[in-house]
Amino acid sequence: MSSQLGQLFRVATWGESHGPAVGVVIDGCPPLIPLGEEDIQRELDRRRPGQSEIVTPRKEEDRCQILSGVFEGKTTGTPIAILVWNKDARPEAYTEMVTAYRPSHADFTYDAKFGIRDHRGGGRASARETIGRVAAGAVARKVLERVAPGIEIVAYVKSIRDLWAEVDPAAVQTAAVEANIVRCPDGEMAERTIECVARNVPAGLGEPVFDKLEADLAKAMLSLPATKGFEIGSGFAGTFLQGSRHNDEFEMREGVVRTRTNHSGGVQGGISNGEPIVFRVAFKPTATIAKTQQTVTREHEETELAARGRHDPCVLPRAVPMVEAMAALVLCDHALRQRGQVGH
Amino acid sequence: MSSQLGQLFRVATWGESHGPAVGVVIDGCPPLIPLGEEDIQRELDRRRPGQSEIVTPRKEEDRCQILSGVFEGKTTGTPIAILVWNKDARPEAYTEMVTAYRPSHADFTYDAKFGIRDHRGGGRASARETIGRVAAGAVARKVLERVAPGIEIVAYVKSIRDLWAEVDPAAVQTAAVEANIVRCPDGEMAERTIECVARNVPAGLGEPVFDKLEADLAKAMLSLPATKGFEIGSGFAGTFLQGSRHNDEFEMREGVVRTRTNHSGGVQGGISNGEPIVFRVAFKPTATIAKTQQTVTREHEETELAARGRHDPCVLPRAVPMVEAMAALVLCDHALRQRGQVGH
Amino acid sequence: MSSQLGQLFRVATWGESHGPAVGVVIDGCPPLIPLGEEDIQRELDRRRPGQSEIVTPRKEEDRCQILSGVFEGKTTGTPIAILVWNKDARPEAYTEMVTAYRPSHADFTYDAKFGIRDHRGGGRASARETIGRVAAGAVARKVLERVAPGIEIVAYVKSIRDLWAEVDPAAVQTAAVEANIVRCPDGEMAERTIECVARNVPAGLGEPVFDKLEADLAKAMLSLPATKGFEIGSGFAGTFLQGSRHNDEFEMREGVVRTRTNHSGGVQGGISNGEPIVFRVAFKPTATIAKTQQTVTREHEETELAARGRHDPCVLPRAVPMVEAMAALVLCDHALRQRGQVGH
Amino acid sequence: MSSQLGQLFRVATWGESHGPAVGVVIDGCPPLIPLGEEDIQRELDRRRPGQSEIVTPRKEEDRCQILSGVFEGKTTGTPIAILVWNKDARPEAYTEMVTAYRPSHADFTYDAKFGIRDHRGGGRASARETIGRVAAGAVARKVLERVAPGIEIVAYVKSIRDLWAEVDPAAVQTAAVEANIVRCPDGEMAERTIECVARNVPAGLGEPVFDKLEADLAKAMLSLPATKGFEIGSGFAGTFLQGSRHNDEFEMREGVVRTRTNHSGGVQGGISNGEPIVFRVAFKPTATIAKTQQTVTREHEETELAARGRHDPCVLPRAVPMVEAMAALVLCDHALRQRGQVGH
Repeated sequence: MSSQLGQLFRVATWGESHGPAVGVVIDGCPPLIPLGEEDIQRELDRRRPGQSEIVTPRKEEDRCQILSGVFEGKTTGTPIAILVWNKDARPEAYTEMVTAYRPSHADFTYDAKFGIRDHRGGGRASARETIGRVAAGAVARKVLERVAPGIEIVAYVKSIRDLWAEVDPAAVQTAAVEANIVRCPDGEMAERTIECVARNVPAGLGEPVFDKLEADLAKAMLSLPATKGFEIGSGFAGTFLQGSRHNDEFEMREGVVRTRTNHSGGVQGGISNGEPIVFRVAFKPTATIAKTQQTVTREHEETELAARGRHDPCVLPRAVPMVEAMAALVLCDHALRQRGQVGH
Repeated sequence: MSSQLGQLFRVATWGESHGPAVGVVIDGCPPLIPLGEEDIQRELDRRRPGQSEIVTPRKEEDRCQILSGVFEGKTTGTPIAILVWNKDARPEAYTEMVTAYRPSHADFTYDAKFGIRDHRGGGRASARETIGRVAAGAVARKVLERVAPGIEIVAYVKSIRDLWAEVDPAAVQTAAVEANIVRCPDGEMAERTIECVARNVPAGLGEPVFDKLEADLAKAMLSLPATKGFEIGSGFAGTFLQGSRHNDEFEMREGVVRTRTNHSGGVQGGISNGEPIVFRVAFKPTATIAKTQQTVTREHEETELAARGRHDPCVLPRAVPMVEAMAALVLCDHALRQRGQVGH
Repeated sequence: MSSQLGQLFRVATWGESHGPAVGVVIDGCPPLIPLGEEDIQRELDRRRPGQSEIVTPRKEEDRCQILSGVFEGKTTGTPIAILVWNKDARPEAYTEMVTAYRPSHADFTYDAKFGIRDHRGGGRASARETIGRVAAGAVARKVLERVAPGIEIVAYVKSIRDLWAEVDPAAVQTAAVEANIVRCPDGEMAERTIECVARNVPAGLGEPVFDKLEADLAKAMLSLPATKGFEIGSGFAGTFLQGSRHNDEFEMREGVVRTRTNHSGGVQGGISNGEPIVFRVAFKPTATIAKTQQTVTREHEETELAARGRHDPCVLPRAVPMVEAMAALVLCDHALRQRGQVGH
Repeated sequence: MSSQLGQLFRVATWGESHGPAVGVVIDGCPPLIPLGEEDIQRELDRRRPGQSEIVTPRKEEDRCQILSGVFEGKTTGTPIAILVWNKDARPEAYTEMVTAYRPSHADFTYDAKFGIRDHRGGGRASARETIGRVAAGAVARKVLERVAPGIEIVAYVKSIRDLWAEVDPAAVQTAAVEANIVRCPDGEMAERTIECVARNVPAGLGEPVFDKLEADLAKAMLSLPATKGFEIGSGFAGTFLQGSRHNDEFEMREGVVRTRTNHSGGVQGGISNGEPIVFRVAFKPTATIAKTQQTVTREHEETELAARGRHDPCVLPRAVPMVEAMAALVLCDHALRQRGQVGH
């Protein structure tokens, strides 16, 4: 399905940027998990534009409402519907997009696929679609607290252009990341790489073949808007190493099987090995730019286009909670699958 | 499901390295597609070890048998079962693996997940599992000839260590790739990056949100053994560019909407735009090495392990057809899904 | 998934009887289908209680809102979210249900399964859950008009207690059914059998094995509240016939392959044969009765219970549109699947 | 998918009557379940024709082989492939079927759907397809012994024509059923109703909405060849009762919540309540008859057809293990799903 993810913890998002609302339905959530709108709102606030003067100026409140599946502060095991109204929709600002295809946006491909397109603010292809993901990710985190206690998921900016941050995946804390939001000095600036670590994931999550844990993480990350790459552990750089240096030798540490190095990134043969799961996601530069660009119209006439309307010169403050949300969704689903098949 | 992939063209692989056989069942294949065992055998021969003296010396014939779903040389629309016997299994060669976990293999994680493991030659985690994928990929190619004629899928070695090949994705041919199999001079040598291009993919394949075409490709590639990364179009390097340089401007060419550049890698907003789909897959160095390594046993005692038994110093000749097969499976599934939802 | 149905035309319902709202998300709907809220409202009005003085007295407006997936009066191919607010929720009326299990309701089993239960008005087990089904069914009918033109789906009361209606499935019209709503003279009266016919279904819909058309219809019908049985064609009565009388001989009629009889009920080997698809669904008597009943509490103490609150002495006017909606969902999904796999 | 069933315990069958083999792949089986070929063979022997002189005379050995997923007598958690060769295929016996459509078989509908058909002995529509189901059902029973100990699944002939057996679902044993195989005195005799009971199913299996336990049972049963109806508990006859008589009042019995009657058939609101699950399946008379019948050819010319080749005058000895197998598959899948979502 286009807009569904997960096998046991299944998420279905819906909504267009300038329609009445966006939302998500979560099917398969375990019962008796404490959950309130504030748990979800906290994560939505992290992804919300308007946190600083440089990100997109549209004032969105993005107040979530839980419409089902929660009773007296606890999940009931039935579908959880979460809705956020689109309060500040101004479709009149996007008249040019009706006909001219914005380069490196989804305008042309939606038309090619469906023969119709909600052109208002990008419609379904808008970053607002990710509200449903982040809301669902907040629920997944609550579930993980119950079924795999101790899991910590932290994402952060690893690189901007050619600057690389020195971050220790084994120790980085959310508070430190939040305290130091990277500012974007330039609407034309390049995008970057987000690194994410999931610590204390129990060994045994994932599947041997197609649903390898890294495969499902890769899919989840590449399903985020503007992503162009995914790597886990040693990643692309690991292709330069010899096998004898790349292998992660095992040892006993405090009574637990551990690896001395973590080139594997916490996953071996598709299954978590108890080490921190470390992966990186490449985001392309924002496609919404001020400069006039060459393009064509729906009627296949060449034309020029200058960007207008709501846009995001910098997606950084959003990308971090998005990546964390997708990681939480994947880990939650696999934790429930493991419990279903193996019983623990 | 652990061992299933695809929504309409659904593939289920089975089999362990030293069990009686490996195989695949394909459900949802369109009817009336010409298909013979030779179509599948051709691709299996490309992935088979033993093609040169340097790859794994086990003599595998890997003769495939079609057991169902084909009648008088054509698919019938019912499940296609394909089987390959494991003729040269020598389980006695792997006694050490019974107890000691091979570093950077799946021995430990399988035990952690399932509490049991077929230790003979890696069992399910062996590269022989990919026989089913390659066989199914051969069928997918035949289907694509019918439902999306003209699609060409070609993969090739893009880099070995720090050497990068100069290849034009818009023109590279399978014959050229096959004529020049890279030899692996060293059992300790580093793995590499495979690049794959799919040309003439019609605009419109893929989905807007979770099942973006690049997301499904990323999952398919990261589900292959020994992969550590995936990138499409500009990939990780694109994070260094400015948006104004990264955007692919549209123009009309021979009456068709085309882009002037292809940083997007043929996919925008999750949907193919008609340009060549270009992606790269990072393979880690082989984990099977001659050197003695530190590790632990099932009983959690530290020990040393020297590799023995059947092993592959170089997976290169296999990786190319594997990557192509997975690409074919993803494209075939999306082509059928597009026909189902949109009608063309 | 608990609350999802369909492979290509996938429906996900959500909502409890006395929560803020109920709704449905439809994923995979073809694009460019004309659709307005009035198309959905028409079907919702048919299922709504309050149409006559004898059905449940709660005044529900059940006004639907389309929140996504429709643009300028046409579907866009993205998820369609439909919401209906619960305007008249009066949870205080159900205090007894907090502890005492109503016989033959889902109170006990929800507690047994989830350990928690939204006891207000039956929560998720309320008939209000079917609002989402009927709304989705209305969309499915619109899709069928496009992909399988001419399909007519008509359900009607076949029997009440031991009275059987004389209806010709080949000719019965919705108008005639609607004109003659069966009144329910007695809050204690027995439930009945609904018969449904789908005419002009093209030959070829369905699947050979598990997803036989009759199997998916059976599942869809048995997923409706209060259903206890399903039969197609000759059904249970057909077990009394000899094979030579039961077989439907083929003949040519107006250039088309037809059967002389239709004991098969329009489906053979799991696949439609072009004849009218005729099936019957058994509904049990309503479990909400005025009489005092013996039961137990959550704390496992025996007690007595007298029904109170909103209840439906007669579900008849609801059952007919519900059965039609579920039939439309199944046929729409199979029509898209057939187009996906076979191309027509 | 056409040939797949189940969400966590997923079964994929394949094979045609006169192809080389038939089989099944089970994905998602829990690890460490003791399993040998004899466990499967026992069930296959129960469904095998040739057990008495009156059933189909073809001598099939139907020896199963486990090809993967079992190691040292225990399941490993990876896919279990089971294969049975078709040893006695005589395709030449079916030449007439090449062109003439057998009435009330799947010949015409397969052609209508796929445009091609393996006409040898019914191909995919043959009863041999159910070998894979029965084999998988045998595995499901072994899993249920572990995850829901004490479950007993017993099916038996409830009626032949208008004769109804007096059987107590709460007490009937497999041994008694097997000891008294109903003989079929007449190749033209009518088919019958099979009743099945599943005892000691824990309360809490099933799902609230679409995947109600009775809905999945109905689908599973209607997916069996020659079935025309399904009813649970009071079924169609229950429509004659008043609600006050139909309701199953609760009481405490030996410290457990029980119902005084079982009109619900062990399922309320889609979820098991701990009482015996009792349902009935209607089988149509065999469509393979000796009498000459009117029919049409592939070329749409009217013709006459007399049945030949392998055929089953009586499917009774097969239907019983088939029904049990499908019940086991559904219960096993729901038991694992419950463990996954709820944790017990």
